[in-house]
Amino acid sequence: MNYFTHRRNSLLRDLKKDNLDALLITQPVNVTYLTGFMGDSSYFVLTAKHAILVSDDRFSQQVREECPDLEVHIRPHNKTTPEAAGEVLTKLGAKAVGVEADHMTMALAEAFKEYAPKSTLAPVRGAVEALRALKDASEVEAIKAAIRVAERAFVMFKSTLRETETERDMVAAVENFVRRAGGDCTAFPPIVAVGERGALPHAPPTTKPLNDGSKLLVDWGAVLNGYRSDLTRTLKSPFEIAPTRRNKSERVGYNFEKIHDIVLKAQDAAIKTVREGVPAKDVDAAARKVITDAGYGEYFTHGLGHGIGLETHEAPRVRQNSTDTLESGMVITIEPGIYIPGWGGVRIEDDVLVRRDGGLVLSNLPRDWATGM
Amino acid sequence: MNYFTHRRNSLLRDLKKDNLDALLITQPVNVTYLTGFMGDSSYFVLTAKHAILVSDDRFSQQVREECPDLEVHIRPHNKTTPEAAGEVLTKLGAKAVGVEADHMTMALAEAFKEYAPKSTLAPVRGAVEALRALKDASEVEAIKAAIRVAERAFVMFKSTLRETETERDMVAAVENFVRRAGGDCTAFPPIVAVGERGALPHAPPTTKPLNDGSKLLVDWGAVLNGYRSDLTRTLKSPFEIAPTRRNKSERVGYNFEKIHDIVLKAQDAAIKTVREGVPAKDVDAAARKVITDAGYGEYFTHGLGHGIGLETHEAPRVRQNSTDTLESGMVITIEPGIYIPGWGGVRIEDDVLVRRDGGLVLSNLPRDWATGM
Repeated sequence: MNYFTHRRNSLLRDLKKDNLDALLITQPVNVTYLTGFMGDSSYFVLTAKHAILVSDDRFSQQVREECPDLEVHIRPHNKTTPEAAGEVLTKLGAKAVGVEADHMTMALAEAFKEYAPKSTLAPVRGAVEALRALKDASEVEAIKAAIRVAERAFVMFKSTLRETETERDMVAAVENFVRRAGGDCTAFPPIVAVGERGALPHAPPTTKPLNDGSKLLVDWGAVLNGYRSDLTRTLKSPFEIAPTRRNKSERVGYNFEKIHDIVLKAQDAAIKTVREGVPAKDVDAAARKVITDAGYGEYFTHGLGHGIGLETHEAPRVRQNSTDTLESGMVITIEPGIYIPGWGGVRIEDDVLVRRDGGLVLSNLPRDWATGM
Repeated sequence: MNYFTHRRNSLLRDLKKDNLDALLITQPVNVTYLTGFMGDSSYFVLTAKHAILVSDDRFSQQVREECPDLEVHIRPHNKTTPEAAGEVLTKLGAKAVGVEADHMTMALAEAFKEYAPKSTLAPVRGAVEALRALKDASEVEAIKAAIRVAERAFVMFKSTLRETETERDMVAAVENFVRRAGGDCTAFPPIVAVGERGALPHAPPTTKPLNDGSKLLVDWGAVLNGYRSDLTRTLKSPFEIAPTRRNKSERVGYNFEKIHDIVLKAQDAAIKTVREGVPAKDVDAAARKVITDAGYGEYFTHGLGHGIGLETHEAPRVRQNSTDTLESGMVITIEPGIYIPGWGGVRIEDDVLVRRDGGLVLSNLPRDWATGM
């Protein structure tokens, strides 16, 4: 039984439990997860007896190649995908139809009254997302491959840096190296922050050049075959800078090496906490304790991490108020940070597989502040 | 009165007409359109007396800079944006609240029963989208600037092409040149198709090299300050290729220059049809007639174009079954194509402003098949 069949069978158990005749999957990534189809603009209908992809003729060949075991309904040009899905549901005689309540809009739900007049939509929340949180072996390999791409891209980036490059130049360089390293694209617009701009956890890139700051924060990721990676390194600026220049815009009084070391220790403490059965908020707490004990608690202004897979942010939530519990097979980011307005920030982020007996760090990139490679 | 105030006042007239106490705008691009705020994760609440951005403290400074005339509600860390928006609505005493039915999910609508228990949500469709379809002077300038970036990127791309580059290499090059030309990023993953792969209107890039085909289709766009461009050029492959190699995988029997000329004439015919008051489907029909009369009607397999602005695809729809009518201020793509399986495809796309007395082509890039520049 292949991975996709296994996933659909897991979902079918939910379906039966909830007395649903069919599930209508509309969230594109969830369609991919359940079918292997990598295109878009398509819906997936699952019943006890049928697994039907509703697509259009742009994808006819791709569907045959990517999911040969599925039934396929290619919509005619004069119908929309929702209309075609409605017809499929009607033809199947599906009365109670589970729909993805976190994706189905009010307008679309209303339209289905016309497209599938004999069906009643039942909102379902997080069913596919809960399956997706637990990665199977093929997914762990896919995430590792996306991490390898990101790591190669970073080595290229780091080894070709010029001191006159601006944050915008460097974002372009990271993006380009992710493709050159074999990635399909970046997982999100890379964050590259020079000097005190690192104090903004999501700094948009400016024309500030590398040699205008004494540190460099880079948060980047790659997509490969649908799966994603997400890493962050903070470096001491790789170039010698005259002291008068270095602190032009950076408030003095904080020691980079010391703060980097605290963040590193916080990450290590969090990683050591990772294990099946541990509440996700305890992992956040482990990192937060190190940073708070060092006197920087107020400067760690975001949650510790998040699940990663087909989406950059997915279940579980790894933060203070999370109610999620770690389970074997989850892959999460662990990314503590210290952000000091006017001085800058340090964040270190790696991707970690949750196992029964502990966490396995999937990323291999050194966390050294001098080289990051 | 600035553009944003003007837009909000237009929307307030809808609000009054529909007897709504407030509008809750959740679609990120619509929030940007009505406020000038370029960040994300924020909602906008509009009443006759209040214009309130609901955001979080990552964006405090950005909100002050980008929309100084707005009231701002910064949510506390322990509340989500929907929860905070619910509190704002409750505090305002808003009973009938219009929500964006094409963006509000079933789950979120359900959650608002708790977050804003005294409010009743009324689904509103396309209100902001209808305003956005008619560009004001600032938006036409912004789109032109995004077009200029895309054009500069294409000139860079074209002048640095190497015959051994693969489709994947060329996608990376286009992406990089869009940034180098000053763009914030690409408007969508560029399409680069060599030889017979041009027959797929949305060909994903492969490792097929440029010198493995006699033609090259490039569909790309840039984002600058939120606004987008979308262009396509199809070139005769810029390198001399030995005849034995050229047609390795391309079915012979079709003449590139002739087909390019038909598509060009189809585009010209469509552009000439553009004018305020013309049904959008007539513009599609004008292009389709040229292609059909030349005997290639079955190979023009998609609609002629779409509105463009803050999103790559927005109102109006310019296709066979469109019920939209062109209005002065709309900006649309006009992109006829001929796609012959096994041979390849030709598409030419430009961005056109609708005016009272005709269409104004905003893009300046030559449509020559030999150079495209």
